[in-house]
Amino acid sequence: MNALSKRVAVLGASGYAGQELCERIEAHPGLQLAAAMSAREGVVPDEPALPIDRSLDALDWNRIQGLDAVFLATPHGASAPLAARALEAGAKVVDLSADFRFDDVTQYERVYGMAHPHPELIGEAIYGLVEFERDRIAEAHLVAAPGCYPTSVLLALRPLIEADLIELSAPIVADCKSGASGAGKRPSAALHFGSVQENFRAYSVGMHRHAPEIEAKAGSDSARVVFVPHLLPCFRGILSTIYVQPKTGAPVPEARAILERAYRGEAFVKVFDRGQPELSRVVGTNQCHLAIADGRAFPGAAVDAADEHAGTWVLTSAIDNLLKGAAGQAMQCLNLMLGFEETEGLR
Amino acid sequence: MNALSKRVAVLGASGYAGQELCERIEAHPGLQLAAAMSAREGVVPDEPALPIDRSLDALDWNRIQGLDAVFLATPHGASAPLAARALEAGAKVVDLSADFRFDDVTQYERVYGMAHPHPELIGEAIYGLVEFERDRIAEAHLVAAPGCYPTSVLLALRPLIEADLIELSAPIVADCKSGASGAGKRPSAALHFGSVQENFRAYSVGMHRHAPEIEAKAGSDSARVVFVPHLLPCFRGILSTIYVQPKTGAPVPEARAILERAYRGEAFVKVFDRGQPELSRVVGTNQCHLAIADGRAFPGAAVDAADEHAGTWVLTSAIDNLLKGAAGQAMQCLNLMLGFEETEGLR
Amino acid sequence: MNALSKRVAVLGASGYAGQELCERIEAHPGLQLAAAMSAREGVVPDEPALPIDRSLDALDWNRIQGLDAVFLATPHGASAPLAARALEAGAKVVDLSADFRFDDVTQYERVYGMAHPHPELIGEAIYGLVEFERDRIAEAHLVAAPGCYPTSVLLALRPLIEADLIELSAPIVADCKSGASGAGKRPSAALHFGSVQENFRAYSVGMHRHAPEIEAKAGSDSARVVFVPHLLPCFRGILSTIYVQPKTGAPVPEARAILERAYRGEAFVKVFDRGQPELSRVVGTNQCHLAIADGRAFPGAAVDAADEHAGTWVLTSAIDNLLKGAAGQAMQCLNLMLGFEETEGLR
Amino acid sequence: MNALSKRVAVLGASGYAGQELCERIEAHPGLQLAAAMSAREGVVPDEPALPIDRSLDALDWNRIQGLDAVFLATPHGASAPLAARALEAGAKVVDLSADFRFDDVTQYERVYGMAHPHPELIGEAIYGLVEFERDRIAEAHLVAAPGCYPTSVLLALRPLIEADLIELSAPIVADCKSGASGAGKRPSAALHFGSVQENFRAYSVGMHRHAPEIEAKAGSDSARVVFVPHLLPCFRGILSTIYVQPKTGAPVPEARAILERAYRGEAFVKVFDRGQPELSRVVGTNQCHLAIADGRAFPGAAVDAADEHAGTWVLTSAIDNLLKGAAGQAMQCLNLMLGFEETEGLR
Repeated sequence: MNALSKRVAVLGASGYAGQELCERIEAHPGLQLAAAMSAREGVVPDEPALPIDRSLDALDWNRIQGLDAVFLATPHGASAPLAARALEAGAKVVDLSADFRFDDVTQYERVYGMAHPHPELIGEAIYGLVEFERDRIAEAHLVAAPGCYPTSVLLALRPLIEADLIELSAPIVADCKSGASGAGKRPSAALHFGSVQENFRAYSVGMHRHAPEIEAKAGSDSARVVFVPHLLPCFRGILSTIYVQPKTGAPVPEARAILERAYRGEAFVKVFDRGQPELSRVVGTNQCHLAIADGRAFPGAAVDAADEHAGTWVLTSAIDNLLKGAAGQAMQCLNLMLGFEETEGLR
Repeated sequence: MNALSKRVAVLGASGYAGQELCERIEAHPGLQLAAAMSAREGVVPDEPALPIDRSLDALDWNRIQGLDAVFLATPHGASAPLAARALEAGAKVVDLSADFRFDDVTQYERVYGMAHPHPELIGEAIYGLVEFERDRIAEAHLVAAPGCYPTSVLLALRPLIEADLIELSAPIVADCKSGASGAGKRPSAALHFGSVQENFRAYSVGMHRHAPEIEAKAGSDSARVVFVPHLLPCFRGILSTIYVQPKTGAPVPEARAILERAYRGEAFVKVFDRGQPELSRVVGTNQCHLAIADGRAFPGAAVDAADEHAGTWVLTSAIDNLLKGAAGQAMQCLNLMLGFEETEGLR
Repeated sequence: MNALSKRVAVLGASGYAGQELCERIEAHPGLQLAAAMSAREGVVPDEPALPIDRSLDALDWNRIQGLDAVFLATPHGASAPLAARALEAGAKVVDLSADFRFDDVTQYERVYGMAHPHPELIGEAIYGLVEFERDRIAEAHLVAAPGCYPTSVLLALRPLIEADLIELSAPIVADCKSGASGAGKRPSAALHFGSVQENFRAYSVGMHRHAPEIEAKAGSDSARVVFVPHLLPCFRGILSTIYVQPKTGAPVPEARAILERAYRGEAFVKVFDRGQPELSRVVGTNQCHLAIADGRAFPGAAVDAADEHAGTWVLTSAIDNLLKGAAGQAMQCLNLMLGFEETEGLR
Repeated sequence: MNALSKRVAVLGASGYAGQELCERIEAHPGLQLAAAMSAREGVVPDEPALPIDRSLDALDWNRIQGLDAVFLATPHGASAPLAARALEAGAKVVDLSADFRFDDVTQYERVYGMAHPHPELIGEAIYGLVEFERDRIAEAHLVAAPGCYPTSVLLALRPLIEADLIELSAPIVADCKSGASGAGKRPSAALHFGSVQENFRAYSVGMHRHAPEIEAKAGSDSARVVFVPHLLPCFRGILSTIYVQPKTGAPVPEARAILERAYRGEAFVKVFDRGQPELSRVVGTNQCHLAIADGRAFPGAAVDAADEHAGTWVLTSAIDNLLKGAAGQAMQCLNLMLGFEETEGLR
């Protein structure tokens, strides 16, 4: 830590993503964790912000005055007012909630069922999918870190949609599976150990709020997504299996080449030329691992050259939901906003 | 056990399915476990057939002579010759391998990459998906118990395909997740504890042999299936999430009503009218739990009345892969073949 | 179910032990589950008593009148008044709480920190460690089912203490490990999935209430126990590792012979002559598996013939905490009290 | 990486500890991973040394010539010859096997059942329990990294034995629980996913080779240890629960003060003044967390002032078996040997 370090606070530091942010800041040679705070005024936290040995403090705006940046690891609805005040205090803001992910306020209000607390800020916010918005993020004061599921799905989909390889008249199926940390730290019957271990289930089938986020950021207004999240009996990681219809004639290798070109030189996205992504290789990292395969390659598959669906593509995408899906991607954004190497604190 | 008990052997009794069969037989008031044997001649097993306190014996055809029935929990290729010999010895046979699942020998040979050892028996074998083949199973001497994944997928799909509610010009997506017991008991790097726990991955993407089995038994020659299996970090259970395009105009409740009607009175299939199946409720039982939902029901979904795909249906299906997906369904079959109540040994 | 079935209620049916009791009753040919009720008057339960398809009802004493027996799967302090009222209503009672486990009311009050609600009933209650109290249980109207940890420890210890093989001037160490179901179903930070999986810890070190219960029932007033429970990252089962000093000269095989003799003919206790108990072999059963070994048998152990401690014995004991440690043992007791085979509903 | 980096090789780089060493070296600003090699000559490894993107090479002594140091993550018996040759090549050696842990060659040969391949090197080797051997490690050319279980037990025990607070006429009980990574990467029936998950068992009861290692390094020739390891259904971490008899009169707080004094200023050992260590707080770190408590503090414990055993102490010690119990501690040693900060690569 030296005099030139940038000083950063985390609001909402007691949750899983907040803790991960604190750890990433501690590991960052150019950042100083100036405050790890609860998100609510007047709340005195009773739990240490494990695993770092740092106490979790009550929200105190005096300590935020003059900071270089603030991470908001706070719920939707709560983030927007905190962002407004932190921006006013001169800090750059990376918000991990959904409050600034939609460009269209009516879309936000329909999906989250509430009036937007600060619609005037929406126009200033950049969607922090770094690999697609790098330049705009570097200029931004307010970045909305993407949702965990959308990150995983969009990194697979967007290059193919932008290259116009996907038949968008057919729905895109995103069958996503997440470890339990994605559901947060608050005790509940659904997340009791006995409810998760040796169990597996879909939830919010066809109704999850990340579905419109994926559609909004997919790279085409025509994309329609069927999104089904599932709860895995493990702690970290998201693996998404995505089914798309290629436009007639496009073979899998062409699609793979498009993905490889899109991510050439990227530090945090790897396109497999063989094998399949798996959670164990991305957990604990900021990596996204991608693969693409032919969905009907089994012996005897009824392939008909005239059949436009014959080549259904299966994309698989693996990330650590708390890193590339949350704190890691948010740190990538802040690195760009503050002029650091994008990978600082994330190796 | 009384003098009127039917006497049954299990060949391949050391594997997970074989052990489960032994337990079901012990729990069956009308069956006697006459022999729990290895599948290979001359092999002296060194491991007890846990968890029952019964030794696992070497294969001995003298002991099979005169038995009422034989379960084959043996690999494809190995099962067919054992089935031929057991039938000759006068026993009824339920084969849990793939050897008699295809009506078409060339299909078998294409999928399994080998000549069929006993093509002359294929015509005698009945596919043991009980809820659809009850009468023929009751008359059969040779039953091919369906694969675990196909059981889970077909119980969801077949009533809807038979009712002509599904648009078969679009591929059916079956995204299936199985506990590690589905991969068997043989030690391997892929199934080492450290490779499975806190991990998740797809495998055999678009290439798994259960894909053609599902297509062959889906109830229509036009059904084309994209099937991707995944390995869950738990031991038992399969949850399949199945995406289908309804024919124009069909609403979810109509489809649910078709499923309910199809399984009314069935002891082992339950159609949910709300909520989602989960593994913990079917593991340890012979149940299949089914649900159906609208895949694009989220707030703001771009539904267009003229859009034929608007109503993508999401079917979810949960079974215990070792019971309804293997030993349990095999026991259902044998109960029918021997004249017992279909539920004996399975409650 | 026939006209001669005994009618039984479960109070506190929504917890893990309560649910297991309901399942055991359903599996019992001579019992009828007359009611599965909440334990608190006026409470309308909102959750089905899974996994059986039976609703959980509010407490209703009218429905208890005339029943043959009542299981109390209720917390200490709450059980005693329910027991009093159920006895008055003519039912036999098996209480799974601690309320009637101590013969000495002052001991109860010291350990549980409250006045005993019904001290007049203490004299009537029998401690339900079946293998040691069979005859008295058969005559009892009120049985206190032992705690899960004490069951596991006492089945290993008591025959050796009764045979006077253990040096009681040295403390007995009981290092016990339990799956998370032992901590119950109520959501809490400590039992959140993320707090238990891939984790392990001791708790209540030297302070757990089961320590005095073990001492009180160990078979000698001189026994002093150091008891440390631990929370395993799995759902069911207790494995206890117990360290005792043998009296000078007693070898391990003699101790094993004592254990074998003590449990000869018992349906639910198995003494290993080689190998070690493990949770996977007892989970789902009412079995207790026991083994005994020499604690210092490694090559080069400094064994001195004159060393009275040379032969420290290591006892290991495995049970399913919800069966032999709770519902299963309670059912054993009720079978005795109602004149059934002790194993009914438990195979 | 700069020209002044020290160049280091890992032999046996495909195992869990070997991989962890490679990762620690990559994270170390002063070290360069010159080679990650198999341990056996002529073996061409077919598996990448995950998770770093570096190939695993065949053993090649030419590439070891001129290196600054070599880590041996190789089995006992195999390590000693490799150490001899690496020392000859001018490298400093940290051996993670048992080959140089015993000062007494006959002890080694009794415990490991084989002649020592290089007894002439035993005198040069230092036992790498850093907190107790720091100065001698800094001077050493050959360090024997302690076993995982001994590290966990000795860090708790040794300060108390050296302070003469423990009654050594009574056996010390070390009840230790390890995640499955401690058993290595080689597939086996015992480490198959289905054998470990939802299971728990003791193994090598009273016979494990780490028992004599603990006794030899406990700080007194009189210490006699009863050591029982157990296999946890998780991947990483060791928690040891250790039971000792204090000398008459010594209270728990005095013992805790001794531990605190022993580890004041240590970067990697933390003594708790309240609460209990748990695996989740040490996994992924090089930390050892320690606590001490009174083993009979429950209400109504029969404490007698004249009772010398009344105050049985319960020590709990948690480490990551692959870091503080293997690669991390080995890196601490190498840092000392090469003149780096002890914590480099380990934060």
